[in-house]
Amino acid sequence: MRLLVLGGGQLALMMCWEASRLPIDFVVYDPDSSAPAFRCGRRAVDPFAAVEEADVVTFEFENVDVEVARYAERLGKLKPPLGYLLVKKSRLEERAFFDSLKIPTVPWRRARGWEEAVRIAEGMGRAVVKIPAGGYDGKGQFIYPREAAGFRGYGGDLLVEEYVDIRREFSLVAVRGEDGDVYFYPPAENFYVDGILVWNYAPTKAPEEAYEYVHRLVERWRYVGTVAVEFFEARDGRILVNEIAPRVHNTGHWTLETDASQFENHLRAVFGMRIRRPRLPPAVAMVNILGLSFERLPLGELEALGRVYWYFKAEARPRRKMGHVNIVAGSVEEAAAKARRVLSLIYGREFPKLVMRPRGG
Amino acid sequence: MRLLVLGGGQLALMMCWEASRLPIDFVVYDPDSSAPAFRCGRRAVDPFAAVEEADVVTFEFENVDVEVARYAERLGKLKPPLGYLLVKKSRLEERAFFDSLKIPTVPWRRARGWEEAVRIAEGMGRAVVKIPAGGYDGKGQFIYPREAAGFRGYGGDLLVEEYVDIRREFSLVAVRGEDGDVYFYPPAENFYVDGILVWNYAPTKAPEEAYEYVHRLVERWRYVGTVAVEFFEARDGRILVNEIAPRVHNTGHWTLETDASQFENHLRAVFGMRIRRPRLPPAVAMVNILGLSFERLPLGELEALGRVYWYFKAEARPRRKMGHVNIVAGSVEEAAAKARRVLSLIYGREFPKLVMRPRGG
Repeated sequence: MRLLVLGGGQLALMMCWEASRLPIDFVVYDPDSSAPAFRCGRRAVDPFAAVEEADVVTFEFENVDVEVARYAERLGKLKPPLGYLLVKKSRLEERAFFDSLKIPTVPWRRARGWEEAVRIAEGMGRAVVKIPAGGYDGKGQFIYPREAAGFRGYGGDLLVEEYVDIRREFSLVAVRGEDGDVYFYPPAENFYVDGILVWNYAPTKAPEEAYEYVHRLVERWRYVGTVAVEFFEARDGRILVNEIAPRVHNTGHWTLETDASQFENHLRAVFGMRIRRPRLPPAVAMVNILGLSFERLPLGELEALGRVYWYFKAEARPRRKMGHVNIVAGSVEEAAAKARRVLSLIYGREFPKLVMRPRGG
Repeated sequence: MRLLVLGGGQLALMMCWEASRLPIDFVVYDPDSSAPAFRCGRRAVDPFAAVEEADVVTFEFENVDVEVARYAERLGKLKPPLGYLLVKKSRLEERAFFDSLKIPTVPWRRARGWEEAVRIAEGMGRAVVKIPAGGYDGKGQFIYPREAAGFRGYGGDLLVEEYVDIRREFSLVAVRGEDGDVYFYPPAENFYVDGILVWNYAPTKAPEEAYEYVHRLVERWRYVGTVAVEFFEARDGRILVNEIAPRVHNTGHWTLETDASQFENHLRAVFGMRIRRPRLPPAVAMVNILGLSFERLPLGELEALGRVYWYFKAEARPRRKMGHVNIVAGSVEEAAAKARRVLSLIYGREFPKLVMRPRGG
């Protein structure tokens, strides 16, 4: 069984770790020759030829070449289906997709250029203005009015959202098999700084409606594989979908501590195997290692608290996800306390204060 | 941290799977360019240069170039220590090693050439004659008198052992850290056909003295890493050490279903990290996939019963270990029942009967 993965970042690398236990020939296409997944998978040079040679084609990330994915879809090999990739090409498309399924999201409007965006944002009072394409990890998002300079002069369409006061953020990671079987991993509560996930823990509580929204999303085009949906719980109690990630997801890295991770179940699903229900530890926390080179890592101390995963990226740039630490614990309180110690080991004394409370908006 | 592994078979491959989660640069030396571990690890061309460049050197198998290991030992990089590798170069040395530690083993004698071996075996009544070097998986072993033709004409020293009537075979897989901490995985009961492990399960019972013998063995030269010791329980009740394997071992493959496998703990130990105590499922069975090509594997049915691990060997030769299936269960009875189904899926209806009872001798 040959799998072609479009994109060779850490998500493909972790998928490849899990694939190495299964009888899967793992091929990766990424134009960047230093992509982490080449440490584990075989490199494809011509993506179209690789699509032809693969039994199944999947993607680890939204920012992949749509033409390659479209070709895989045409040959009946793309999982999940192309529709999910296409809505992710534009935040405006994604919002419209949620609206079409009557899934509540942050109130939004489309602006034709930056000047209209300013007018709409002005009308909302506080707003977040987002460039529709290519954004992730907080890139291309600007709080209005504070960061208005960031999108000044932008000529294309912009997404303008009301600024919502948020109590907490959580995500649901689910897997849907070809047979329609859907398994939900326990919900995770997530903590961001400047739009980048810094740590999370599971399990947390999620209201029934959140599961219902995920069902609507995956049934729309018969999703196959692992999917993540991020939610806001607003201070006024509204449950709002923020984003769908049609792939394995950072908020599901904690599932590596189960015996059927999001990565393994993604592989199982795309190859038409049955979804495996994992045995779950009482609690797991995950802490991202951002911007740190391996040499600066207090490995011994971290390993005493949890399991360190390293992505072997060529260079440690600021904010870059270099690895993560998973912490298994007897309770979420214990997991959070250990996560706090891991955060201060990685980032020093002050940093944890910033991230041990939910994101402000 | 750079690790050099001598030998590139499935044991190195599985070590590499676990290493890929840890920040370890995994280098493999094996003269065979199609060795399975090259699927995962980086290939070293010059073994002596690779020893110089590595932080730690270990081996996956006893049949490695002793000169390379000796060089690594001289540079203070070899773990476990050379002594354990050297005793494994000859079954006669190994027996003498057990005797020197007053560890009971099958009564044995050294024969100078095949004719003396016949005389000694004759005196024992039934015996097993073994060629001292290079034997594993039942190779180079002959039951006397039935298989006497196998060693006829052999000029070197031979090991002659009394034929012992065996009730069951079990093994202890343990890990010793540099700090002297020793962790024992639960004992496994093992089932062989013609000297090849076909399946096993854990946990089973092992008497106190078995643990004591392992302690003596690992303390002799301050072992570091994972070690396996195979035991016979004779019908007359004696506990006899059969073999020491100074490495990760087939009877410990079931530990991949814990959160700290024999492979991970070997890596942790050789890098001076603390041994991790795994959370253990109630029972696990392991079934070897011998001599079967991937095309002939009933993958869907196997995956419904357990987890399939595939070694990606170039060719499926008879008796060759091609992969294995791990089965997690709520009890050893359930594990054994599922193992039986896996055995008949892999080998057909008759095969299980041969191996669901302990080896005859």
